[in-house]
Amino acid sequence: MTEQKESDVFSIEKIRRAADRISDYVVRTPLLSSPMLDRAADARVWVKPEALQLTGSFKIRGALNKVLGLSEQDRKNGIAAFSAGNHASAVAAAASIVGCPAVIVVPNNAPKIKVENCRWWGAEVIFYDPATEDRAEITQAIADRRGLTIISPFDDHEIMAGAGTTGLEMAEQLIAAGQKPDAVVVNCSGGGLASGVIEAMAHYFPDVEKYIVEPQGYDKMAHSLATGEVRHNPAVRHTIMDGISGPVAGKLPLEVLLRHGVKGLTVDDDEALAAVSAAFYTLKAVIEPGGAASLAAVLSKKTIFAGKTVAIVASGGNVDPAVYIRALTENPLRPA
Amino acid sequence: MTEQKESDVFSIEKIRRAADRISDYVVRTPLLSSPMLDRAADARVWVKPEALQLTGSFKIRGALNKVLGLSEQDRKNGIAAFSAGNHASAVAAAASIVGCPAVIVVPNNAPKIKVENCRWWGAEVIFYDPATEDRAEITQAIADRRGLTIISPFDDHEIMAGAGTTGLEMAEQLIAAGQKPDAVVVNCSGGGLASGVIEAMAHYFPDVEKYIVEPQGYDKMAHSLATGEVRHNPAVRHTIMDGISGPVAGKLPLEVLLRHGVKGLTVDDDEALAAVSAAFYTLKAVIEPGGAASLAAVLSKKTIFAGKTVAIVASGGNVDPAVYIRALTENPLRPA
Repeated sequence: MTEQKESDVFSIEKIRRAADRISDYVVRTPLLSSPMLDRAADARVWVKPEALQLTGSFKIRGALNKVLGLSEQDRKNGIAAFSAGNHASAVAAAASIVGCPAVIVVPNNAPKIKVENCRWWGAEVIFYDPATEDRAEITQAIADRRGLTIISPFDDHEIMAGAGTTGLEMAEQLIAAGQKPDAVVVNCSGGGLASGVIEAMAHYFPDVEKYIVEPQGYDKMAHSLATGEVRHNPAVRHTIMDGISGPVAGKLPLEVLLRHGVKGLTVDDDEALAAVSAAFYTLKAVIEPGGAASLAAVLSKKTIFAGKTVAIVASGGNVDPAVYIRALTENPLRPA
Repeated sequence: MTEQKESDVFSIEKIRRAADRISDYVVRTPLLSSPMLDRAADARVWVKPEALQLTGSFKIRGALNKVLGLSEQDRKNGIAAFSAGNHASAVAAAASIVGCPAVIVVPNNAPKIKVENCRWWGAEVIFYDPATEDRAEITQAIADRRGLTIISPFDDHEIMAGAGTTGLEMAEQLIAAGQKPDAVVVNCSGGGLASGVIEAMAHYFPDVEKYIVEPQGYDKMAHSLATGEVRHNPAVRHTIMDGISGPVAGKLPLEVLLRHGVKGLTVDDDEALAAVSAAFYTLKAVIEPGGAASLAAVLSKKTIFAGKTVAIVASGGNVDPAVYIRALTENPLRPA
């Protein structure tokens, strides 16, 4: 076993440093609960609504932590990102906050609201076709040409640590409320949020059960956990959970999730939409389908969660009104 | 001028005592802002989203403060309330929390969601016809018969003080963020929230401009402020802002609002719905039309608010999905 430098190890200290760096810029989101939601879930459910975060998702935490750590020259040159949406607007916002240029490479099927958000923050948007083009290659080519720093959506300890501040706050809020969670459940795509939140929660609650939730057919991280190697999704098809439908698991997040013995769960579109409507009725937070995956898991997998105290992250709220209306009208979950 | 007992004077001390009493039970809601919302308003807007509060509105703060102050015998006998909705579910929830029976007298045109919420909390619901019956008389008769304590929706210092904890938190959060508001803007019906919030905010920010917002045609408090006497609405017609459409201004709230030189504003249904949609896009909070009245005023009255730092309360989020969908589809205000 080779010796690792401190900087190679992902840890609670990195998350604490991120919290110190970004806390003046981000919202300390509340930790919400609802007796109606609890009864619907047959569990005690604590929800960290990162939809209320600046830019409408937790992603600004990682983007700011990364950008605030760049050299002055790197900031001046500018930053670039490829993303299905929430990372994109977060990088655009972080660039706007520190005053540097940003280029965002976006799939041409991304929700309109997320593309508009990038432009609103002043970023340049470049589209690609996810069926025929590789987003990483396109972004690398642009970055090389213009001298931009690429901000990884998840495969970077600074991004993971920023996202992990969500879990740090959640742990502090649970302790303040006198709560000891039995399980922590986090939406997962590349794994930046899941690894950061689970690292923080495991530090404060060593016995907590740890779950990630992915869309059915997009369970790349579950496959990665099972094999110990980074995996892609088996196939690209439609999911309403666009926020967590990226093609590949992150290498650095996978290391963390493997170390913590995390278990993988999946939910389908109907379960996600039902959770969106449950959040409308009980939490009064606008949650996007991908942001509601962990809530969907807790509401639908009672054999796992019934009777437990469960902490979850509702990771984003950037949802087109047509999708939101679908959640409110097609088989809504109205706790009663 | 006669001497007043301390208990006759509404003050910051009453609000602080309420905060001490209820803080273990209520959510410390965050103070949100959004660069997109700011640009749409041409102002710096700080929003206290009490939609995220237990029961979906600020009303639980007053109800709990009142019920926790009752004698053991009074609690055992039970409590009663008449309300268009949010006060009703708050009293039902407060009763459930302290373990006492509750009777709620509700207009037969109240939104279904609010009636269901009362029943969910275990309260007995009795309907009346607001066109032909007087809610206060009906409630008094039931209370006399059963020995119940009536919990006033607003005309009670304990209720006002509980509601005022919203303003106390808001002031603390503004100070922590290094903000000095130019104006505070509060939705108003009977005036419990407005009087409590303005008392607290004026204590910390003596120079702040103070506004209440009422639905057009329901500006009973503005008329009361103009005449110095409690007034009813000129006529009962439809408003989408059901949460702030009560028939009469509160006497005790009016005293406070007169003392602070509060100014009255009105908004119409379209402005309220536009504010609901703006909150969907920018804050990711589900706000009911009456809860969005102050946001509607800030977004529509730029001659008053442009260029200012403005603190508002988004007082509730209990909205039927059909109304919410209307806000998202009919002339939504999508800041861009």
